[in-house]
Amino acid sequence: MSVITVERKVLEKNDDIALQNRAVFTERGIFALNLVSSPGSGKTSILEKTCQALRETMKIAVIEGDVQTDLDAQRVAAYEVPVVQIVTMGGCHLDAGLVRDAMQKLDLNQTDLLFIENVGNLVCPSVYDLGEAMKVAVLSTTEGEDKPLKYPAMFRNSSVLIINKTDLIPYVNCNMNELKGNAFKINPFLRIFEISCKTGEGISEWRDWLISKGAN
Amino acid sequence: MSVITVERKVLEKNDDIALQNRAVFTERGIFALNLVSSPGSGKTSILEKTCQALRETMKIAVIEGDVQTDLDAQRVAAYEVPVVQIVTMGGCHLDAGLVRDAMQKLDLNQTDLLFIENVGNLVCPSVYDLGEAMKVAVLSTTEGEDKPLKYPAMFRNSSVLIINKTDLIPYVNCNMNELKGNAFKINPFLRIFEISCKTGEGISEWRDWLISKGAN
Repeated sequence: MSVITVERKVLEKNDDIALQNRAVFTERGIFALNLVSSPGSGKTSILEKTCQALRETMKIAVIEGDVQTDLDAQRVAAYEVPVVQIVTMGGCHLDAGLVRDAMQKLDLNQTDLLFIENVGNLVCPSVYDLGEAMKVAVLSTTEGEDKPLKYPAMFRNSSVLIINKTDLIPYVNCNMNELKGNAFKINPFLRIFEISCKTGEGISEWRDWLISKGAN
Repeated sequence: MSVITVERKVLEKNDDIALQNRAVFTERGIFALNLVSSPGSGKTSILEKTCQALRETMKIAVIEGDVQTDLDAQRVAAYEVPVVQIVTMGGCHLDAGLVRDAMQKLDLNQTDLLFIENVGNLVCPSVYDLGEAMKVAVLSTTEGEDKPLKYPAMFRNSSVLIINKTDLIPYVNCNMNELKGNAFKINPFLRIFEISCKTGEGISEWRDWLISKGAN
């Protein structure tokens, strides 16, 4: 029982800081998104494509969360957007305190759109609020249609689902209708985008949605 | 500090039970493998292929770990091997106690080879010993060459790496030499198998290795 109590206290403290982060974002009109997925679903590739498509239109900043290395931050920094790297040193998710520390290294007055790329993990990040406007789950077509059913918390707590690597559909056993059906079973309110970072399919719809949300 | 202390106690308790599990496996000559990977890397497909290739030769049993659903257990049970499903109800990894409970539902006298399919998660399962002879990490060619560097604990703590979905190499940006180089940087002692569950490539090498290990 003591472990459960400590876990609850950790989450309560996290949620307090998340509320403070959210207040900062709201006050400054920053649209903050928490990108969550398995390792290798393509979160960083989506960020690269998004920076390419949007950096002339909106002021983008990125917080990168990784267990180890700053490889992702280097990839995003190549697009000349401000990036702060959080290395969790083994930790399996970002928490609101880590994000608060990272926010202090960004010029928030020069930010319309903040992407927080979480650690690649379809389980633990689902229960940690970072203060984001919404969670964006990424799932690649190579991962199988059953993932929303098997990892329901992540899909229930996300507002957006990006189905990535649509270019690979001909080569993998992925039934898109079944995948979307499973996602809607868990969360009927999901906004779904189908994207290929390789061919560029779906990037313009995603960009237009970000612009419309960021302008609110 | 209190959280860290509790976490350490949880791990110590886990390790005690893992030692007991390991003693049971050793005593009965069971070769137990802990299959770990991201969601969607193909652990269950590999189990299906392995059951198909080996069930006439060795007595196989499977413990399936999932956050939700018994979809994987159903897939494996179709190959007529004994399967016990553990549903973690949100938990991000198996622990030795869960495996001990599942072991009691198997006829261990009728088992040469036990596969424990962990929750799809490249972070948390890396620190939980279940009593297995070794951890087998699965990584698919669609996940990117950088994963061993970004999730080092999993690759350091595994003895075997299965690189799955080799049939997709022509369609994804996967440099196999770079991927293997990164894996060996983290763990020079890794035994690597390259497998395609779709074409059957590499399955016979994997099967032969399991037979040689199971006979010890």
